Formats: sequence, structure tokens, C-alpha cells
Amino acid sequence: MASSPSGKPVLYSYFRSSCSWRVRIALALKGITYDQVPVNLLKDGGQQLTAEFQVVNPMQQVPALKIDGITLSQSLAIIEYLEETRPNPRLLPQDQKKRAQVRMISDHIVSGIQPLQNLAILQRVGEKKLEWAQHYITNGFQALEQILKHTAGRYCVGDEVSMADLCLVPQVYNAERYKVDLAPYPTITRINKALLELEAFQVSHPTKQPDTPAELRA
Amino acid sequence: MASSPSGKPVLYSYFRSSCSWRVRIALALKGITYDQVPVNLLKDGGQQLTAEFQVVNPMQQVPALKIDGITLSQSLAIIEYLEETRPNPRLLPQDQKKRAQVRMISDHIVSGIQPLQNLAILQRVGEKKLEWAQHYITNGFQALEQILKHTAGRYCVGDEVSMADLCLVPQVYNAERYKVDLAPYPTITRINKALLELEAFQVSHPTKQPDTPAELRA
Repeated sequence: MASSPSGKPVLYSYFRSSCSWRVRIALALKGITYDQVPVNLLKDGGQQLTAEFQVVNPMQQVPALKIDGITLSQSLAIIEYLEETRPNPRLLPQDQKKRAQVRMISDHIVSGIQPLQNLAILQRVGEKKLEWAQHYITNGFQALEQILKHTAGRYCVGDEVSMADLCLVPQVYNAERYKVDLAPYPTITRINKALLELEAFQVSHPTKQPDTPAELRA
Repeated sequence: MASSPSGKPVLYSYFRSSCSWRVRIALALKGITYDQVPVNLLKDGGQQLTAEFQVVNPMQQVPALKIDGITLSQSLAIIEYLEETRPNPRLLPQDQKKRAQVRMISDHIVSGIQPLQNLAILQRVGEKKLEWAQHYITNGFQALEQILKHTAGRYCVGDEVSMADLCLVPQVYNAERYKVDLAPYPTITRINKALLELEAFQVSHPTKQPDTPAELRA
């Protein structure tokens, strides 16, 4: 796997991985330039499973980020590290209770929804995978809609973009991919739309990555 | 659901929930006294699903913690809030790279292993649930063992107890419950054993909670 001759951080990423997208948004918001190494989760039986990639990330998942001499994985751990080392613009509010709300919403998506509908688990579920994905996204969105009614302003928590928003947009993208009816979630839908107007969410979009196949490019 | 007439934090918890146990360890380590409201995930079709509990936590999961006038859910969001508001003893190292390692290991367990073998998903999987749970725990532990070889001292990251350790011990408990062979994971096993010698891990143990059934009490 490539290291960066430029000295820039290197992101191991897959265009359609929602976890990779979260980190791409964080990097874009914070104005961090980076090199991207595509890891195709479908090709060659999953390039994340190769011995070569296992050296980069023993968890055999994207994203992984080489930065400051270390390699990090797990999207939220990466974003928290970026937040601590490159605090501007901030992705966690100053107020402790609001920070807790941001982390609660982020964890709800990252632990409570995404893992139950990711590629690996759906491959294991087999033919009922669409129904399975819809079940877990719907379940998670019902709770999320209730929570956002209490926490949201223009975005998930108040009027500042936060880590929670970096989790929301890729999860809504997955919901659309699995044909979940979003009509029952007006707050989620409204916030998602507002976020997609921001440049950082656009440049990091799955349709605009170096490894996006030509037929999916926007 | 009860509020606390004493003004102490109230933890909504289930004795055998590994996510609840993580928070109980944090509360014990930080010396925070609290009242506990048991939420039985099996009784009455799951007490976490009642309308009454949904008011407490729309995510319909334990743990939830009422503290400082707010109600938080998601174990890591709760622990991060406790860390920010009650920093002693600390559960995140001072060094930023080590903090990132702690969060990476925590997220690997909390997002990458536990959700794939929790009660709700195993109920859905049905008769193959033991094999399913073993598959995901084994997968996760193979990666975790590799990571810990780089990060561990006496505990998961160096020689100080951290948030990662609060995630490790309940996950090993689940592994034992689902009869996963732990022989291939000497580092995990060694750290787990060292942690179980600490009082905070003992008093918070599933066998010692107010709602632990008599036949499981230790």
C-alpha cells in the first residue's frame, strides 16, 4: 500500500462506504488535503481482506487514515483525533451537554444502525438482505427522528455542523440505496437536504471520488 | 420510570447488558454514586420497548443515564460526558495519539462486534444464533488481538485503565457466554484477567446487580 511521498495524510477509502464518507466530510470541512488510496470492497473478493491491507488496518475495514506517523481506523475515532489536533472549524460544540448529544446521535448511527446493514452483514444475510437493511434503518430512523426533534436547529444539534451531521448524511444515502421510505422522517429529511447544500458534503460525495465507477459519477 | 428523589444520577440498566456494564464500570471508577432502575430486556416482551421507557430513551435501549438534568444514551457518549464533567480518574490518556488508540479500540468493540451479537439481532437470526454470535466475536477478536499487540501494556493501551478496557471486559464476558474459544487471543485474555482484579470491574459485574436473578448471583 502506498505511503504518501507528499507527506500528506493518506485515506484508505471506498467511494460508497458510508464510514469512509464521514471521514471525507471531516477532512473537507477542516480543509485538510490528503491522498486517497481506493480499497474496493467488492473486487478480488474484497481488497480490504488482503494480507497487504491487513498490515495497514488489522480490522480489515475502511476507512483508515495515515496521519502524523500513525494509522487510525474507525471513523469516529479518526474524527475525534482530527478534532483534537485540528480544532478549526470545530465539529463538537463547546457546551458539554450539546457535545454529549452530538456523540449520542453519532453513536446511534455508527453503532446502532450502520453495522446492522453494512455490506459484510448483508452478504451473510443473503436473499433477504433488502428487507433486513430496511428493518434496521427504519428502526433506527424512528428513534433518530424523535431525538432530533429535541436537539435539532438547522442541523442535527443546533445550527452548527457537527460530527452528528457527518454521520447522518451517509446514513440517509444508505437508506435511499435500500429504498427506505423517508416520508415518516421530516426532520431527518430536512437536515439532510440542508447539509447537502454545503460544499464539504458535495466534494466528499460517493459520486465524486477517484474510485467512483464512470456510470455512477455525478 | 423513577426519577431520583436523592438527586443522584439514575442509571437505567440490565444486569447482563454489556453496554450497561461499560457505564457501570465508568461510574464505579469515578466514584459516582447512582440509583439503578432495572429494565428487563426479556420480561414483558422487552421492557425497553414500552411507551413508558420510550419517554426516557427513544432509542429503546439500555443504558440510559439521567444526570445533570439531561438523559443520555449510548454507552460511549455517556462515558465521554462523564470524562468531560468528572475527569478524575481519567479514562482517556493525555497523549492525543493514545487517546485515538483508546477510541479506536472502543469503537471496534462497540460498533464492530457488540451490535452484531446483541440480544435483538440474535432473536432475529433465530436458530443459528450461536454460530452467528461466534462468527462475529471471533472475527472481531482476531483483529483486536493484533491491535492490542501494538497498544497494550498491562491494559489495552499502556498501563492505565481506559475507556477501551471498559469495553473489553464486557465483550469477553459475552464471548464466554457464547462459548467462543479464547485460546487464540492470549493478549485479550491476559488483559481481561488483570482488569477483573480491580474493584470497579467486580462491583459492576452482571452477577452482582440489583436485578441479577438469584440463581446467577455471585
